[in-house]
Amino acid sequence: MMNDQAQQYEQQTQKIAERMKRVGHVVLVLSGKGGVGKSTVAANLAYALAERGNRVGLMDADLHGPTIPLLTGVSGEMAGGTPTGLEPVEIGPHLAIMSIGFLTAERDQPTIWRGPLRGNVLRQFLGDVEWGSRDFLVVDLPPGTGDEPLTLAQSLPQADGAIIVTTPQEASLSDCRKAINFAHKVDLPVLGVIENMSGFICPHCGQRTDVFSAGGGERMAREMNVPFLGRVPLAAEIVALSDAGRPLLSEEAPEAVREAWREIVDALMERIGESE
Amino acid sequence: MMNDQAQQYEQQTQKIAERMKRVGHVVLVLSGKGGVGKSTVAANLAYALAERGNRVGLMDADLHGPTIPLLTGVSGEMAGGTPTGLEPVEIGPHLAIMSIGFLTAERDQPTIWRGPLRGNVLRQFLGDVEWGSRDFLVVDLPPGTGDEPLTLAQSLPQADGAIIVTTPQEASLSDCRKAINFAHKVDLPVLGVIENMSGFICPHCGQRTDVFSAGGGERMAREMNVPFLGRVPLAAEIVALSDAGRPLLSEEAPEAVREAWREIVDALMERIGESE
Repeated sequence: MMNDQAQQYEQQTQKIAERMKRVGHVVLVLSGKGGVGKSTVAANLAYALAERGNRVGLMDADLHGPTIPLLTGVSGEMAGGTPTGLEPVEIGPHLAIMSIGFLTAERDQPTIWRGPLRGNVLRQFLGDVEWGSRDFLVVDLPPGTGDEPLTLAQSLPQADGAIIVTTPQEASLSDCRKAINFAHKVDLPVLGVIENMSGFICPHCGQRTDVFSAGGGERMAREMNVPFLGRVPLAAEIVALSDAGRPLLSEEAPEAVREAWREIVDALMERIGESE
Repeated sequence: MMNDQAQQYEQQTQKIAERMKRVGHVVLVLSGKGGVGKSTVAANLAYALAERGNRVGLMDADLHGPTIPLLTGVSGEMAGGTPTGLEPVEIGPHLAIMSIGFLTAERDQPTIWRGPLRGNVLRQFLGDVEWGSRDFLVVDLPPGTGDEPLTLAQSLPQADGAIIVTTPQEASLSDCRKAINFAHKVDLPVLGVIENMSGFICPHCGQRTDVFSAGGGERMAREMNVPFLGRVPLAAEIVALSDAGRPLLSEEAPEAVREAWREIVDALMERIGESE
């Protein structure tokens, strides 16, 4: 006979599997370190997929710094409860969002949870959200290769794979290599690398400066034999739109950014075999 | 009678306290999220204090992404062992460095350690390094407000306090507020906030763009009633020097960056009551 804990774990695993049966594709977004724009990539990937007519779920699995509510302009919202789970927050007809930020009222208070507890919270969270029928579920993982990304990757064996976000400088690439090796270790296919903050175009003179260096992500992806999905330039408008909770596909974004996003989504679609 | 684990914990606490008796000031560098330049700040603070004639220790307590070896140009070095502990890597006459990166040979492999184990590794690490007599110990904490920063803050009650690094955009400030509340919760004085990546000056036309917005760190510090130490601009040279393991006080750094650093170190000295 199983003990209570093992039984509860088994039940959760089944619950997650049941929910995921109604989801076409699961894409995990991860990064070797924080601050590379992982959440911005996850949010804008969700926006872009929804804009193409897909029913998309966006899950913010970062317990410590859930930024998805801010980036999508719905911070302050609270998730509704149903008899069987938690109702995600809807943005438009195609996009539903869930974040641990919708469950805690005090947004500036740190949640000081010890590791094993965090794993439990995340698995419960994964099993409890009423996504319904979705073409895509985009999961914004916590940064790094620690407990939480491990728990999440192991709890979602249905996932198509991972998108790994990096910035071009060596300090970030080195952590990105770790994230790729992490994905290999947990048998998670690497759908591709995105190089973020790749070159800054001065809005005053139009000249480009590679603030965080450039091209390193593509080179690294080639060396590690994983696909490269594209690079997104650094722009003040990206930060302003993100802080205001608006998508980067909006017309206020520089054309170079919108173009970069279109190409990345096309490349991703090709990778996961969706031809539209 | 105590059990083995409690006894071991108690012994480690005493060992850490013994080592810290020979250290004048302990400064913890933390951030609410990764990628804001926390390690760059820690490394350059250590360089700056050493340049002023202090004997400085720099401890990299980030198990997942130890970037201090890269930032100080000593990646690939291995720590030496002594009968009583681990020998830090010396850079010049005044600066000694210790990193988990000096203990693991495969630098691109992720260390997938579960939380409680990480806490043990960190405490052992803290008690085992032969710092000798130091005027300052600068500790680069892992980002966020999770297990590891908690373990480290609790294990170093001798610390003068914490420096909290943020970038100016709202997504980072929100996590910075959490880090300040975290410091309050663990009774760690806040020595001050540093706003990093604050404005970019185009090397082509000299015009400034607030890529990640600007001034938010100072405003937030005022609102939360903690000191503000200063802001460091964003510059391609910073990334290049950091990737090459060179200090930002070097002559290759833009004068605005060097000036910013001088003012920050002056402000910090004043806070911890060192008058030079």
